[in-house]
Amino acid sequence: MRVLVIHGANLNLLGEREPQLYGTQTLAEIDADLLETGRKLGIEVRCVQHNSESAIIDALHAARTEYRGIVLNPGAYTHYSYAIADAIAAIRIPVIEVHLTNIAAREPHRRTSVTASACAGSIVGFGARSYRLALHALREMLEE
Amino acid sequence: MRVLVIHGANLNLLGEREPQLYGTQTLAEIDADLLETGRKLGIEVRCVQHNSESAIIDALHAARTEYRGIVLNPGAYTHYSYAIADAIAAIRIPVIEVHLTNIAAREPHRRTSVTASACAGSIVGFGARSYRLALHALREMLEE
Amino acid sequence: MRVLVIHGANLNLLGEREPQLYGTQTLAEIDADLLETGRKLGIEVRCVQHNSESAIIDALHAARTEYRGIVLNPGAYTHYSYAIADAIAAIRIPVIEVHLTNIAAREPHRRTSVTASACAGSIVGFGARSYRLALHALREMLEE
Amino acid sequence: MRVLVIHGANLNLLGEREPQLYGTQTLAEIDADLLETGRKLGIEVRCVQHNSESAIIDALHAARTEYRGIVLNPGAYTHYSYAIADAIAAIRIPVIEVHLTNIAAREPHRRTSVTASACAGSIVGFGARSYRLALHALREMLEE
Amino acid sequence: MRVLVIHGANLNLLGEREPQLYGTQTLAEIDADLLETGRKLGIEVRCVQHNSESAIIDALHAARTEYRGIVLNPGAYTHYSYAIADAIAAIRIPVIEVHLTNIAAREPHRRTSVTASACAGSIVGFGARSYRLALHALREMLEE
Amino acid sequence: MRVLVIHGANLNLLGEREPQLYGTQTLAEIDADLLETGRKLGIEVRCVQHNSESAIIDALHAARTEYRGIVLNPGAYTHYSYAIADAIAAIRIPVIEVHLTNIAAREPHRRTSVTASACAGSIVGFGARSYRLALHALREMLEE
Amino acid sequence: MRVLVIHGANLNLLGEREPQLYGTQTLAEIDADLLETGRKLGIEVRCVQHNSESAIIDALHAARTEYRGIVLNPGAYTHYSYAIADAIAAIRIPVIEVHLTNIAAREPHRRTSVTASACAGSIVGFGARSYRLALHALREMLEE
Amino acid sequence: MRVLVIHGANLNLLGEREPQLYGTQTLAEIDADLLETGRKLGIEVRCVQHNSESAIIDALHAARTEYRGIVLNPGAYTHYSYAIADAIAAIRIPVIEVHLTNIAAREPHRRTSVTASACAGSIVGFGARSYRLALHALREMLEE
Amino acid sequence: MRVLVIHGANLNLLGEREPQLYGTQTLAEIDADLLETGRKLGIEVRCVQHNSESAIIDALHAARTEYRGIVLNPGAYTHYSYAIADAIAAIRIPVIEVHLTNIAAREPHRRTSVTASACAGSIVGFGARSYRLALHALREMLEE
Amino acid sequence: MRVLVIHGANLNLLGEREPQLYGTQTLAEIDADLLETGRKLGIEVRCVQHNSESAIIDALHAARTEYRGIVLNPGAYTHYSYAIADAIAAIRIPVIEVHLTNIAAREPHRRTSVTASACAGSIVGFGARSYRLALHALREMLEE
Amino acid sequence: MRVLVIHGANLNLLGEREPQLYGTQTLAEIDADLLETGRKLGIEVRCVQHNSESAIIDALHAARTEYRGIVLNPGAYTHYSYAIADAIAAIRIPVIEVHLTNIAAREPHRRTSVTASACAGSIVGFGARSYRLALHALREMLEE
Amino acid sequence: MRVLVIHGANLNLLGEREPQLYGTQTLAEIDADLLETGRKLGIEVRCVQHNSESAIIDALHAARTEYRGIVLNPGAYTHYSYAIADAIAAIRIPVIEVHLTNIAAREPHRRTSVTASACAGSIVGFGARSYRLALHALREMLEE
Repeated sequence: MRVLVIHGANLNLLGEREPQLYGTQTLAEIDADLLETGRKLGIEVRCVQHNSESAIIDALHAARTEYRGIVLNPGAYTHYSYAIADAIAAIRIPVIEVHLTNIAAREPHRRTSVTASACAGSIVGFGARSYRLALHALREMLEE
Repeated sequence: MRVLVIHGANLNLLGEREPQLYGTQTLAEIDADLLETGRKLGIEVRCVQHNSESAIIDALHAARTEYRGIVLNPGAYTHYSYAIADAIAAIRIPVIEVHLTNIAAREPHRRTSVTASACAGSIVGFGARSYRLALHALREMLEE
Repeated sequence: MRVLVIHGANLNLLGEREPQLYGTQTLAEIDADLLETGRKLGIEVRCVQHNSESAIIDALHAARTEYRGIVLNPGAYTHYSYAIADAIAAIRIPVIEVHLTNIAAREPHRRTSVTASACAGSIVGFGARSYRLALHALREMLEE
Repeated sequence: MRVLVIHGANLNLLGEREPQLYGTQTLAEIDADLLETGRKLGIEVRCVQHNSESAIIDALHAARTEYRGIVLNPGAYTHYSYAIADAIAAIRIPVIEVHLTNIAAREPHRRTSVTASACAGSIVGFGARSYRLALHALREMLEE
Repeated sequence: MRVLVIHGANLNLLGEREPQLYGTQTLAEIDADLLETGRKLGIEVRCVQHNSESAIIDALHAARTEYRGIVLNPGAYTHYSYAIADAIAAIRIPVIEVHLTNIAAREPHRRTSVTASACAGSIVGFGARSYRLALHALREMLEE
Repeated sequence: MRVLVIHGANLNLLGEREPQLYGTQTLAEIDADLLETGRKLGIEVRCVQHNSESAIIDALHAARTEYRGIVLNPGAYTHYSYAIADAIAAIRIPVIEVHLTNIAAREPHRRTSVTASACAGSIVGFGARSYRLALHALREMLEE
Repeated sequence: MRVLVIHGANLNLLGEREPQLYGTQTLAEIDADLLETGRKLGIEVRCVQHNSESAIIDALHAARTEYRGIVLNPGAYTHYSYAIADAIAAIRIPVIEVHLTNIAAREPHRRTSVTASACAGSIVGFGARSYRLALHALREMLEE
Repeated sequence: MRVLVIHGANLNLLGEREPQLYGTQTLAEIDADLLETGRKLGIEVRCVQHNSESAIIDALHAARTEYRGIVLNPGAYTHYSYAIADAIAAIRIPVIEVHLTNIAAREPHRRTSVTASACAGSIVGFGARSYRLALHALREMLEE
Repeated sequence: MRVLVIHGANLNLLGEREPQLYGTQTLAEIDADLLETGRKLGIEVRCVQHNSESAIIDALHAARTEYRGIVLNPGAYTHYSYAIADAIAAIRIPVIEVHLTNIAAREPHRRTSVTASACAGSIVGFGARSYRLALHALREMLEE
Repeated sequence: MRVLVIHGANLNLLGEREPQLYGTQTLAEIDADLLETGRKLGIEVRCVQHNSESAIIDALHAARTEYRGIVLNPGAYTHYSYAIADAIAAIRIPVIEVHLTNIAAREPHRRTSVTASACAGSIVGFGARSYRLALHALREMLEE
Repeated sequence: MRVLVIHGANLNLLGEREPQLYGTQTLAEIDADLLETGRKLGIEVRCVQHNSESAIIDALHAARTEYRGIVLNPGAYTHYSYAIADAIAAIRIPVIEVHLTNIAAREPHRRTSVTASACAGSIVGFGARSYRLALHALREMLEE
Repeated sequence: MRVLVIHGANLNLLGEREPQLYGTQTLAEIDADLLETGRKLGIEVRCVQHNSESAIIDALHAARTEYRGIVLNPGAYTHYSYAIADAIAAIRIPVIEVHLTNIAAREPHRRTSVTASACAGSIVGFGARSYRLALHALREMLEE
């Protein structure tokens, strides 16, 4: 079972970017951790990061025939990219939205996700664990 | 490690209530499943269901000395109970908000959670799996 | 044919409470009148009053197997109790919302009913007659 | 006791118009039924239908000396005709607003009635029964 | 100099309609008064009343070649008739909006005039004097 | 194939009305042009103009058995006539909304069309060409 | 009969200030004209101009015993000075709000008058004639 | 003179709950202090705390015959409980709303009190002193 | 201990201004009463009244070195004067906002206080007693 | 005459993506059809598809010297890309906005087009015919 | 070249007022610095500070003949003084709005400037440097 | 000291694009001017232009180690790109937002900057001078 993890805008700076909010773990460390988690769960995980909205759309499109599910942290695109929302709705495999921080407890504009309604579900606020939980969720969903 | 699962308003009718939305599994079946999941994770799980807002508040208060964490599905109170939100903020143990359905994809009033900002995080849209994932999340959070 | 009449918050003070708005008839008098109306219509009417939101939810749940229909005046819960709205949607028997006063002609917050969309219909503004008309409506609906 | 029933815009197409919403009964059938109901209640019922906002206003004006009460389904004018609302307020006989469907459970723009606050009360969601119940209500109101 | 006075919806009931708001003077009395005022000012006044929105539009259209100016009380159409607003903008003679009551001191929906921006000016709150002042205004405007 | 073209409020003044916005072509010229276009497309075109909202509703109703499709420019009724929107929804033949000017580039109130959602589609901003394009569209739609 | 005319903020620059909007007549010319009009009407007119909100309030207070009525152009204070609105409400003599330009046809913030509801009426859009019409109105009101 | 003090939701955790906001004094200490203040003022004070909305409503109802006045801190119910607001309006003795913290300086949702308009007055932001001041206020109000 | 009482806009007319709302007590009487209350509490009270926003700002600035606390009734400036709010925030002594009437129960614009968040607390709705209670509050706050 | 057709985000999945909404025709089929239509109309059509907002902007910029007009379906960028709107406004050749579905009849966020006001006109709701009609429109516009 | 610098409400307390926001530099120090900067740039700078809205208006009026340009920090008047905005629009010399702090990053009410649209431009967030940059800007603008 | 100037969407068309708004100077001319200004100020300036949102994000990321500060004109991304805002917040060097035109005086959507709150400050409305002033500002900020 293959799963694609897509990290959205500005997540390449994790570890360095506002560490009081996002922690000191780098994206490379998170990805290594997710591959390890994947191995335990019998999931072949691949991780990509894109600052570009259209690169995320292209990745979603391409994944629809190669992967069984997607874990997506759109970054700030969460709050306005109806184009990514349409891409999620356009493909048939489940997409799980994740966020490192509890976006409900931050600035008002972060309280609205325009992509969540197109996703299968969302996991929010657990730091890097949000991704790991999403892998668990996908495995359970796809095994049934 | 003891964890309390609180099911909010109308969840006692699960299995019978709008099954096209909420599925056919009863609350008793979900609770049995959570106890089993808890056993595997080394968590002593207790499950309660309350239609009463104040009973949920009382349960949150009481849990603060007896449990290490809480999994809470407030039901419709999610959308207006600032009193439950205050109760979550008033206690020091982590609370994880869960929802069976993807509330972002339903009626507009379900898109606002007044309780989420007081919680540690939220897991939304995975049916009964939302609860199981919350147990995983709590174990990881509390073990660190 | 059995029908349950549920009076919501503050209706126990009818007759005494703001009589210029709600009239001088007490709830006991209204209930006696409804039993009499029920007898004429061949309906076995039972009346309860609850100030508690969860007591109303519990009454709605319990009624689903014992009654053929429900007449509900949620009182002020009309304007914010999504939990009662969910309870109405969760049961399969018809619920008719009634109000003594014409809520469209009062304060702005009374113009919004969050429960009405889950009901079969509503009858508003006829004083105690609103309840009697609801009994008529239920009998017609259930006889067809 | 004479009562005027005014059917507003597009109600002449009843039976043919969106029957999944409005049923298959024609307006002529509803009117026949209302005359019959009127006979039972000792009410002389007259029914008119107008697609024109000003025809409804004129009918309301004219009725003020010839009828004891009015049953009005303004159709879509419900949602914006302050002119009809003013006409209702300008006459002294009671007007009851009725709707076939539960407008609280339909599109957002149907949730607002600009005419209801000028009426004595409203009966919503019972199909053609809404009119019959309004006749009952008027008889009770006028007999007291 | 010929001037047309157009009274809008429900103004035919003046004198009888909510006299605490609109006074006890009838429309015929107001019109007689306006003809008299016109005579003094050297204005040939003609007065019409229409409950129909399109009759008002037609009157505005027709007046554009026969009259030098228009005094218009749109009644409740003030608050939503963009069609009347367009008719005012479509003709080249000045239109003055008048209201009997101070609409700024009444219900919120009366605070918005969608027609005023297309008019030359407006005179509000002086009872029947509003019309007389509008005649004065037109004479001054047209004499310059 | 017969098609009805309905011109709404104030369009009778075309050519004279705000020519900087609407051009100098009269409605008669546009209608002549549409009949000519119809002949080329094998469509029997009939054109009517109504300032009255209810006349438009009546025309829509009557057309449902006599025409295969309708081209409708509601004029300012576009922005508030839910009654016309209901009439469009009530009939089964396709209605195409057209506007001479690009209403998206004008005043804010013109940006909302309450009728468009009931139509098959809309063609906006091409002057009199909007109508011609609508005839093309109808022929294609009805030929398939 | 003595009447006070109060010109509000920035009106001292009339004639020089945005003449395409406000005309080229200076305030001194308008005042001279108003004194002349007053003489014809038998009104002793006094004119003051204040850029200061509190000076306008003080003038309103002081006028309540010395004048029979007030003509007030609050300038931009129209749109936010609840303190001036309270001052108008606090005194018992009639205040008429006037504006030179048709504020309904200008920027959105100018469409709201917070002072108008406390006034007896308003006259808007007639240039310096607005003031003259207000003197006419006051004389009529006070003579009755 | 007997006065009832009602503490609302989550106030039982005072001293422990977010002490940086609410201070370290416990509810028992506050109540002891209020009894002492009452003794000095000649008021027989009784204090209750309820997390339940309906318990607060019941307490308000019951108090109407036994007490001369009520001091009420509704806790978070302040912001949405129209049912408590109705209960306050339904009884005839004065109710004073108090808050420990300056709710105007906290989260946006705390800026709206739906209960305040039904109260005699409110005292906000003085910590436990808010209650004491309310006792002073009641004594003055009731002595007059 | 010296305390400054600042009465804002229009309060000089107390006793005469809308007595059904504000009572018949004059400002001089209230001030005499406050001096007396101050004497009992060991507070040297000084009272000033300003219709001018900037005079209030200047008084707040000047008071910061001469007084221990301030009691402020901003009058209508409450609802829009961010400049007064900034002045309150700019000084370090506590300011208590008071209102004679229960502003929560009046017009919508009076429900918003832009100054309250900068104050230590507020006391609303007790007539002249609001000021006296504020003196009590200040003494307690400053004595601790 | 050369015309550029730009398909925006997610349109590359046409035929496969939500076929109940967008139909089963692929983009390649639509493009072939447009080239054919172009040939009939004497238009040299070129079609491109971009998921990238900036690629659309670059295409618009480049087209300004090579093409006579543009047909643009921005996809979801319609609803938020002010950058594309600016690009349309920055070039001098006419751009026609098209949509396959009737966006007025879908989710609320699709009812707002931020790009339409910069376009010459728009054609909405005719499936692939929308593009063909736009070619007709461009030919007519450019031939005049 | 003479330039007037106007400091608005509360800026006289700079250095003392909320120094964590506004720094410890006093207004006198800033003014000395601006005179020095002016000397270097060949600008004769004069600085005034007014807490009074009308004093700012008067200063703007007076400056129109004596100065070539104005640097204005309206303080909190920025957010609501349409009267100052009108004064800026009424004079013909350029006005540059400056703010010490980045008002876009503070409370929501500070995000709206009602004066900025009347100014030539604005410089925000650079502390006392904002003023200096404005002098540079004016010199460049006026030299061209 | 090295500073990066980033021009956002559509700025490559400067000189040609809506010259009545943006002037006739090309971007190359502006860049040459900025290099010259940099040389005078001892700043090594590099200028880039990107129509792509993600290219701007990448440029901001890359600049964080190579430049001391950034001057950014996001173009239309100003109004919705939370991703660019996050990128600005993620890096530690100061970013100054500039705009050629006074965006406060244009269309409503241009009045909101979602990026400004993450910047150090902003300079708006001075044409190409906005950039030069930003270089001055950066040098002063970085020299302190």
